[in-house]
Amino acid sequence: MSKLIIVGTVAFDAIETPFGKTDKILGGAATYIGLAASHFNVDAAAVSVVGGDFPEAYLDLLETKNIDVSGIEIVKEGKTFFWSGKYHNDMNSRDTLATELNTLADFNPVVPEDYKDAEVVMLGNLHPSVQSSVLDQMTEKSKLVILDTMNFWMDCALDDLLKVIKRIDVITINDEEARQLTGEYSLVVAARKIHEMGPKYVVIKKGEHGALLFHNHHVFYAPALPLEEVFDPTGAGDTFAGGFAGYLAKTGDVSFENMKNAVIYGSTLASFCVEKFGTERMQNLSNSEVHKRLLQFKQLTQFEIELT
Amino acid sequence: MSKLIIVGTVAFDAIETPFGKTDKILGGAATYIGLAASHFNVDAAAVSVVGGDFPEAYLDLLETKNIDVSGIEIVKEGKTFFWSGKYHNDMNSRDTLATELNTLADFNPVVPEDYKDAEVVMLGNLHPSVQSSVLDQMTEKSKLVILDTMNFWMDCALDDLLKVIKRIDVITINDEEARQLTGEYSLVVAARKIHEMGPKYVVIKKGEHGALLFHNHHVFYAPALPLEEVFDPTGAGDTFAGGFAGYLAKTGDVSFENMKNAVIYGSTLASFCVEKFGTERMQNLSNSEVHKRLLQFKQLTQFEIELT
Repeated sequence: MSKLIIVGTVAFDAIETPFGKTDKILGGAATYIGLAASHFNVDAAAVSVVGGDFPEAYLDLLETKNIDVSGIEIVKEGKTFFWSGKYHNDMNSRDTLATELNTLADFNPVVPEDYKDAEVVMLGNLHPSVQSSVLDQMTEKSKLVILDTMNFWMDCALDDLLKVIKRIDVITINDEEARQLTGEYSLVVAARKIHEMGPKYVVIKKGEHGALLFHNHHVFYAPALPLEEVFDPTGAGDTFAGGFAGYLAKTGDVSFENMKNAVIYGSTLASFCVEKFGTERMQNLSNSEVHKRLLQFKQLTQFEIELT
Repeated sequence: MSKLIIVGTVAFDAIETPFGKTDKILGGAATYIGLAASHFNVDAAAVSVVGGDFPEAYLDLLETKNIDVSGIEIVKEGKTFFWSGKYHNDMNSRDTLATELNTLADFNPVVPEDYKDAEVVMLGNLHPSVQSSVLDQMTEKSKLVILDTMNFWMDCALDDLLKVIKRIDVITINDEEARQLTGEYSLVVAARKIHEMGPKYVVIKKGEHGALLFHNHHVFYAPALPLEEVFDPTGAGDTFAGGFAGYLAKTGDVSFENMKNAVIYGSTLASFCVEKFGTERMQNLSNSEVHKRLLQFKQLTQFEIELT
């Protein structure tokens, strides 16, 4: 089993969907990634920052999931990063209502000593220079560095983003962002251009349409589980990344074939995430529920054609 | 092996895409369905109508593909159905520039005597009362009736459409049309509502995002092959339907498990169709090319997770 270091926001979210709205609840990329990765019993630690307003109970929750929280800095006099958004009726688009960086504005990530040799590094969506700073602290060359990012950094920190992208093995990015980053509409061409920027593996997330994994001329397509209803898409991408990273950390096998399985695990966990508001579903998800849904994924995608 | 009867337009198309434009070329639902089904060496016949302006060479082409064309009525003094469209840059939407029904306006389909007991009936996109009239002519209960339709008939002949939908086993429909027909955004819920209208099997085509097959509580998801570029999407849906119907006619097995394979064959053939203008790619497609791409589909979708 490998060690997994997770870098990302730990935050408050306030979410509005056609099904209702929440007050400030637990959110953040590192939170979702950690909750998903916890299903693989890996040795994991989160690196983040919160304010004095962040409830002890939330940190306890991560600890009960075996996430080492010693790398989550608590700035007593500061406030926790806050995001608020409202989803449209189709759940595929949303408006950001508020973004308060608070303690995140001056975040200097510090990787705990025990995790500076982590074999798997999961860089959640954050300023690319923060992501770079984490890589700078690693004392050994990691087996696998995975990076998630978003269009916001392409708009306002493209140079920094391109710098960190050069240093990673896997990028996870959504379809529109892949198009923005490369100026290519075809995702096949976009993936090839992103390969040329550095990552050997490119995962393009397509929301309800699933996810594509590209590696040289190989491609794998994991559909999303068709759901009766998506209750709240918040965190689905991070949950996908957490499942992906957690499975690879557990198995220690970073071959393309095994990465296919990691994509399936990521999709499976993400399919739960969207069933309730925020992290609610992920907090109480049992391993037997995950296994049952993996079987559903098999039935959803596997076929037996005899080529005659 | 089963007999396959194909009903649909045989037409002239004029197509404009970002890659170029064509004069009047061979088109029509029955044409694409027939070319796709021809890969399964089934005993197939087309029922349609054309005008005196329709080149003999096009009928010869279908005959060389083992499609019985005796059910294609030639109205000497009439003109062939003509459609013209222009695709937008994203290839997912198009404008219809011209629709000239011509001989199609008074089309009374006549099923050839030899095919009135066909085990598989493929009702291509046409006025639903024409589709019904074909079913009325069948002397034996068919093993499988497949129907393709479009939003146009929901707008202007909904009652007739609902009547024919009651009589069929499988409907193929695209995602937006499924939503329009049911008033439901979730495709899972939409499929359930369409089940209730009659068809035991519902295939929802999602273009570049693949296709879903629903049957009671079972669901199968076949992705579309990720392509560097889609040259011309015209006929992709009909090609999908033709591959689906042809494979089921060949195997004679209409179980859900085998229908999964039929969806994969449909998707595979459709992935070729879009590579060139109109029917060009389908006219010269070899079986070995199809087999090679089926292997690609396996690599694209199959994975080996050991559930621990």
